[in-house]
Amino acid sequence: MPKTSPELALLPTDPHVRDVAFDLYGEVADAPIISPHGHVDPGILLRDEPFTDPAELLITKDHYVTRLLFASGVPLAELGVGPDAAADPREIWRALAANWHRFAGTASAYWLGYELRTLFDISDEPSADNSDDLYDRISARLHESSFRPRALFDRFAIEVLATTDDPLDDLAAHAALAADPSFTGRVLPTFRPDAYLDPEADGFGDRVQRLIETTGQPTSFAGYLQALRTRRAHFVGHGAVSADHGVYEPYTTDLDPIAAQTLFQAARTGRLDAAGAREFRGHMLYQMAKMSVDDGLVMTIHSGVRRNHHRPTFAAFGPDTGHDIPVRTSYTENLRPLLESFGTAPGLHIVLFTVDETSFSREIAPLAGFYPSLYIGAPWWFLDAPDAITRFRSAVTETAGFYRSSGFIDDTRAFLSIPARHDVSRRVDASFLARLVTEGRVSLPTARRIARDLVDAIPREVFKL
Amino acid sequence: MPKTSPELALLPTDPHVRDVAFDLYGEVADAPIISPHGHVDPGILLRDEPFTDPAELLITKDHYVTRLLFASGVPLAELGVGPDAAADPREIWRALAANWHRFAGTASAYWLGYELRTLFDISDEPSADNSDDLYDRISARLHESSFRPRALFDRFAIEVLATTDDPLDDLAAHAALAADPSFTGRVLPTFRPDAYLDPEADGFGDRVQRLIETTGQPTSFAGYLQALRTRRAHFVGHGAVSADHGVYEPYTTDLDPIAAQTLFQAARTGRLDAAGAREFRGHMLYQMAKMSVDDGLVMTIHSGVRRNHHRPTFAAFGPDTGHDIPVRTSYTENLRPLLESFGTAPGLHIVLFTVDETSFSREIAPLAGFYPSLYIGAPWWFLDAPDAITRFRSAVTETAGFYRSSGFIDDTRAFLSIPARHDVSRRVDASFLARLVTEGRVSLPTARRIARDLVDAIPREVFKL
Amino acid sequence: MPKTSPELALLPTDPHVRDVAFDLYGEVADAPIISPHGHVDPGILLRDEPFTDPAELLITKDHYVTRLLFASGVPLAELGVGPDAAADPREIWRALAANWHRFAGTASAYWLGYELRTLFDISDEPSADNSDDLYDRISARLHESSFRPRALFDRFAIEVLATTDDPLDDLAAHAALAADPSFTGRVLPTFRPDAYLDPEADGFGDRVQRLIETTGQPTSFAGYLQALRTRRAHFVGHGAVSADHGVYEPYTTDLDPIAAQTLFQAARTGRLDAAGAREFRGHMLYQMAKMSVDDGLVMTIHSGVRRNHHRPTFAAFGPDTGHDIPVRTSYTENLRPLLESFGTAPGLHIVLFTVDETSFSREIAPLAGFYPSLYIGAPWWFLDAPDAITRFRSAVTETAGFYRSSGFIDDTRAFLSIPARHDVSRRVDASFLARLVTEGRVSLPTARRIARDLVDAIPREVFKL
Repeated sequence: MPKTSPELALLPTDPHVRDVAFDLYGEVADAPIISPHGHVDPGILLRDEPFTDPAELLITKDHYVTRLLFASGVPLAELGVGPDAAADPREIWRALAANWHRFAGTASAYWLGYELRTLFDISDEPSADNSDDLYDRISARLHESSFRPRALFDRFAIEVLATTDDPLDDLAAHAALAADPSFTGRVLPTFRPDAYLDPEADGFGDRVQRLIETTGQPTSFAGYLQALRTRRAHFVGHGAVSADHGVYEPYTTDLDPIAAQTLFQAARTGRLDAAGAREFRGHMLYQMAKMSVDDGLVMTIHSGVRRNHHRPTFAAFGPDTGHDIPVRTSYTENLRPLLESFGTAPGLHIVLFTVDETSFSREIAPLAGFYPSLYIGAPWWFLDAPDAITRFRSAVTETAGFYRSSGFIDDTRAFLSIPARHDVSRRVDASFLARLVTEGRVSLPTARRIARDLVDAIPREVFKL
Repeated sequence: MPKTSPELALLPTDPHVRDVAFDLYGEVADAPIISPHGHVDPGILLRDEPFTDPAELLITKDHYVTRLLFASGVPLAELGVGPDAAADPREIWRALAANWHRFAGTASAYWLGYELRTLFDISDEPSADNSDDLYDRISARLHESSFRPRALFDRFAIEVLATTDDPLDDLAAHAALAADPSFTGRVLPTFRPDAYLDPEADGFGDRVQRLIETTGQPTSFAGYLQALRTRRAHFVGHGAVSADHGVYEPYTTDLDPIAAQTLFQAARTGRLDAAGAREFRGHMLYQMAKMSVDDGLVMTIHSGVRRNHHRPTFAAFGPDTGHDIPVRTSYTENLRPLLESFGTAPGLHIVLFTVDETSFSREIAPLAGFYPSLYIGAPWWFLDAPDAITRFRSAVTETAGFYRSSGFIDDTRAFLSIPARHDVSRRVDASFLARLVTEGRVSLPTARRIARDLVDAIPREVFKL
Repeated sequence: MPKTSPELALLPTDPHVRDVAFDLYGEVADAPIISPHGHVDPGILLRDEPFTDPAELLITKDHYVTRLLFASGVPLAELGVGPDAAADPREIWRALAANWHRFAGTASAYWLGYELRTLFDISDEPSADNSDDLYDRISARLHESSFRPRALFDRFAIEVLATTDDPLDDLAAHAALAADPSFTGRVLPTFRPDAYLDPEADGFGDRVQRLIETTGQPTSFAGYLQALRTRRAHFVGHGAVSADHGVYEPYTTDLDPIAAQTLFQAARTGRLDAAGAREFRGHMLYQMAKMSVDDGLVMTIHSGVRRNHHRPTFAAFGPDTGHDIPVRTSYTENLRPLLESFGTAPGLHIVLFTVDETSFSREIAPLAGFYPSLYIGAPWWFLDAPDAITRFRSAVTETAGFYRSSGFIDDTRAFLSIPARHDVSRRVDASFLARLVTEGRVSLPTARRIARDLVDAIPREVFKL
C-alpha cells in the first residue's frame, strides 16, 4: 500500500495498526448511511432541482465555512450571507480559494476536499490561481442530472435521513415525499420545540398562542401541554422517531401544577424574570421526557451553546451565522430530577450531545454506564472532526464501552458533506478499534462486530429505526 | 517478538518504542504489590474460606460490572445485587457472558480477561455459547486450596494491603490477622470518617452520639474533636497509615471555636441548612488536616462524586450500586484555607484524587509542584484505565515530574482484580516513559529508576510505609 | 538517522512521520526568533555585564525550578529566593543536581538540558556526583565575552524581544538601547497596567494617585482614563506594540460614566467591596479594549490564575515564588460585552491566553473562528511543554486552523531559555503538521508554508511587527 493516499486517509501511520484499521474500515466503507439527526431541507429532495452554483452549494449555506472566512477578514455580505446578500457566486468562490490555506487542518477543509475529489474529480487544492477553473468545472457538473438531489441521495446510499422541523410545520413535504412512488428513500421529520419552550426566545408569547389556537386548546398550562402532545402525535404520524432539544443548559426540575401554571401565565405574557425563565425551561425539559415516555419519541439533548453571541451580527444577518459559542456544561446535577423520575423508564431513550468535551469522561459516560435510557451522543459540531472523535472514543469507551454510544450523527445542513462526515467517522472508529486490537484489549473478531454495529445495529436501536 | 500477545498488551505499537517499554516494564513486572488504599474486607483473609461461586467472585460485588449490565437491560436483582437478591449464580454468569461484547474496550473487560487468563487458564472470550463451560471450569478451581484468599494473597505478592474502615470499628480482624503466625502479610486499616463529618449523611446525629459516648467525651464540639482524635489513635495503634476523606467538594474553611460549636449543635440535632452543612464539612476537613499534622496519618482526599445519583435505586438496593456520578471539581480556591495553614507543615502528606481529569494539569499538578505536603493521586475510579492513565501522566508530568505523584492505588473491593490493575499501571507507565526516552526527554537509566521508584520508593514515601 | 539523538528530539517515533517532521522542522530550525511577549529585564542588555554564577543564571530567578525544589523539601531561602537570601550559589546548584531526577519529564528539565548541551557542551545529567564539576565548567564559561547578554542575543538570533513594563516606567533603558549604535536588536516595551486597574491590588489608591499626578490629570474617572491613554502613548512612542492584561477572570462589562465614576472614587479610597471591585476590573478591561481600538496596541489577556496562593510564602518571599495556581476559566460569557462592542472593530487584535486547557476547544477556538479581532494565544506557562502544545494544536486546529493562532510566545524571564523554548515549539508544531500530512489531511507544500508562517508571518501579523 502507498504511504499516503486518499484510501488510507485518517488511518494510523504505524503499518501494523494501519493494516488492522484498513481491515476494520473495509467492513463498513460502503455500508448504507443512517442519518438520524440533521438539518437538510426536505424541500430540496421534494423539488429535486439542480443546485444553483458552487458557492451556494459549498459555501454560503455552510456556517462552518463562512465563519472562518469572516474571521479572516471577508465581510459576511460578500459571502452571500444574510437577507440582502447579492454577492457574485464566482467572487464568493474566489474568497474561499484565496484563503484555502487558512482552513488547513480543519474539519471543513477535509470534508470539502473529500467532496471535490469524490464528486468533482478535483484533487488540486483551491487557490487564487485555479479558482476560476475549479468554479467552472464544478458548475458544469451541477447541470448534469446525476447531480440532482435525489440522484445524490441514491449515490450516497442514504437509507434514513432525519430533518429538523418546527412543531407547527404541517410536514407536507415529508408526506409528499413518502407518497411519491419515484422516491424510495426514508426521510423523517424531527420535532424541535425549543422556540415554544423558552420564554426568553423572541416572539415566545405569540408562538405559544398560535400553538394553542392551532390545536384548539385552552390558554392554560394544561392546554399548552396538550397542544405539545398533539403536535408530537402529528410528527409520530409522519414517521418521526425523535424530538430534539437545543438548550443552553440541561437543567431540569419538576414543578407542581400550580407553580407551573403561574410561570406559564407570566411567560406567555412576557412578565417572567431570568430565574423564572430558567425554572420554566427546566420544567419543560422534564415534561418533554415525560411525553417521550408516553409516545416513544427518542429525546436528543444538544446543550451548552450561547447562540448568537454577537448581537450586531445577529441583527444584521440572522441566526446560524457562525457565532454560536459553547459554554461549560454539567449534566450530573442538572439532569438528576429528570433521571430520578424517568431514567429507568422502559423504552425511554435519551441521547446526550455536548460541545464541552470535559463532560465525556466525567459525566456522560458514567451516566450512560448506569441509566438504561441514556446514550452517549456522537461528538457534536466543533467536535465532529478526526482528532476530537478520537479523544471522544478514548474518553468514553473505558467507562461505557461502544454500545452505550449513539452511532454517528452528521447534524448537518450541508447535504453534500453527509458522505464525507460519515466516512470520517468510520475511518476514525476503525483506527481507534485497531489500536485496541493491537494493544491486546479487544479481539479482532469482536472489533469487526463493533465496527459494523456502530453504523447499523447501534443507530437502529438507539433511534428505534 | 510476536505482534500481539498478552506479554505485549498495552505496550506501544511502534517497534522501537515498544522495545524500550518492554525493557522498562521488565524492571517492575514481578515487583511486590503495595496497595495503600482499597476496599477489600479483611475478614476474607482472616477466615480464609473458599470463594462461593464465579458470580460472587467476579460479578455481584463489582459495581463496575453490574452497572453496565444494568444499563444494558439486566435488572439489578437478577445480578444478585441488593438485600433480597436470590439469583442463581449460573444465570448471573450467563448475563455477563451474553453481554461480553458490550464490555469491549472497558477497563473491566481488560481486568476480567486478565483474571480469566492468569488464574483460570481461560483465553476464550465469554459468550452465550461457552458460558456454562466457563462457569464450570472456574467453579472447579474455586475449590482448590490454592484459590483460598491467603494463597492468592501470597501468589499476588501483595506486600501491603490497606483496607477502609469505620472509625468505630474495633479492628479485631486486623488484630487477629496481625497476631496470626500463619499469615505474614501486612494488612492495615484506614480511618474513613465521612459519615461522622457530614451533617447531611443519613443518621449523622445518632452516629456522632455513639462516637462521643464510645470515647467517653462530652457532647460538645471539643468533645467531638477529641473523640475523633481518640479513634484515630486507635487506628494508628493498629498500624493505620492514612485517613481517607470522600467529599462532594474539597471545600475547606477555618472557623472560630464558637461558630464551630454552634454549627455542631445544629448539625447533631438535624437543624442545619445546606449552607451550614457545607461550612461544617469544610471546617471538619480542615480539622482533619490539623489532626494529620499531629498524628502523622496521611490524608487522602477523594472528591467530586455525587453519590447515589438515582435515589429509587439507592432505596431499593443500597449504596455502591453503580450510580455514583462525578461532578466538576475545583481545588485551587477550595483547598486554600487548609493549605495556607498546613500546606508547608513538616511531615504532613495529602494525596489528592479526582474523577474530573481537567483538574490534573490545571490545578493538581501546579499545587503539588509547590506544596511539599501535596501529592498527585493516581487516576481514580472511572479514570483507572489504560488511556486515562496515559492522559494523566501526560497532563501532570510536564509540570510536576513523577516524584510528586502517589504511585498506583487500586482502590478496589474486587480482590481478584488487584494484580490486573497494578499490572495495567506498570505497563502504561512503562509505555509513557518509553515515549519520553525515545523522544529524547528522559534518559534510559533515569527512566529505569523512575519505573522502579513508581512501584516501590514512591508509595513507601507518600504513605510512610 | 540514529534512533534517538538531540537532533531528533521531540519528533515522532514512527519513521515515516518522523521523516516528514524532520523536513518541516528543517524549514524553521534556524529561523530568527520573534518574541513578542516576555519578562526579560532590558537592563541586562543595556548593561551587558557577565552573568554572576550558574545558580543566578539557571535557578534562582526561575520559579519553575525553585518551586519543584521547594516541593521536594528544599527551603526557598536555601535556593537564594527572597529579599534576605544569602545562599552559596554552589550549594544552590548542588540542590538542583541532587534532585535532577525529580525534574525528569518536566519542561524545565528539557530546557535546562538543552541549555547545558548547546551553550556549555554538557551532555551529562546533573547529579550529586558531578555537581561541582558542572558548576565549575559553567562558571568558567560565564566569564567569556561570548557569554555576555548582547553576544547571546545575537547568537540566539533574536530579531524582536518584548519586555513587560510598569505604566509609569520612563522606558529609559529601552530608549538607551534604541539609541546605542553598537546594539542593533529590537527590544520593545509592553504596557502592563494590572496594578493600576485592580482595586484589590496592594497600594492601588496610591498608585493611581501617582499615575494621575504624573500625567497632570484631575482626580476623576475621566482623568484616570486620560492618564492611562497618555502613558499608552508614551509606550507607543517607545515602540510598544502591545498591552498585557493579567486578570483573575476575563470578565468585562460596560458601565455608564456615572456608575464608573462612583466605583472609581470608592476604589481609589479603598471603600469598594469585592463585587464592586469585580465590576470595576471588568469595566477597565472593557476600557482597555476601547483604547486599543484607538491607539492600535495589541491586547494580550492572560487570565485564570490565583496569584500568591500561599500568603505566608508571599509575605516572606514576595511574588513570583512558585505558588500562582490556575483556576477554571470561562471566556464565552465573560468577554461578550467587550466583543459585542469591539469584536469586529477594524485593526483590533486581542490574543487570549489560558492555563485552563479545557477552554481551547470549547471556547477560544470557536471565538477566534468567528471574531476577526481574536487570536488564540500559544500554550501558556504550565502548558508551554511538548505534550501540552500537542494537545493544544489538536484542540484548536480542527475548528480554527493555524492562522487564527498567535505563533509561539515564550513569556519567560529566563533569558537563556528563550532558544530552547522556541525550538521546542518548532519541533512540536512540525511533528503535529507531519501527522496531518501523513494522515492525508494537509498537503506537504501547505504544511511547509504553515511551518514557516507560524514563526514569521503569523507573529508579525498578530503583533503588528
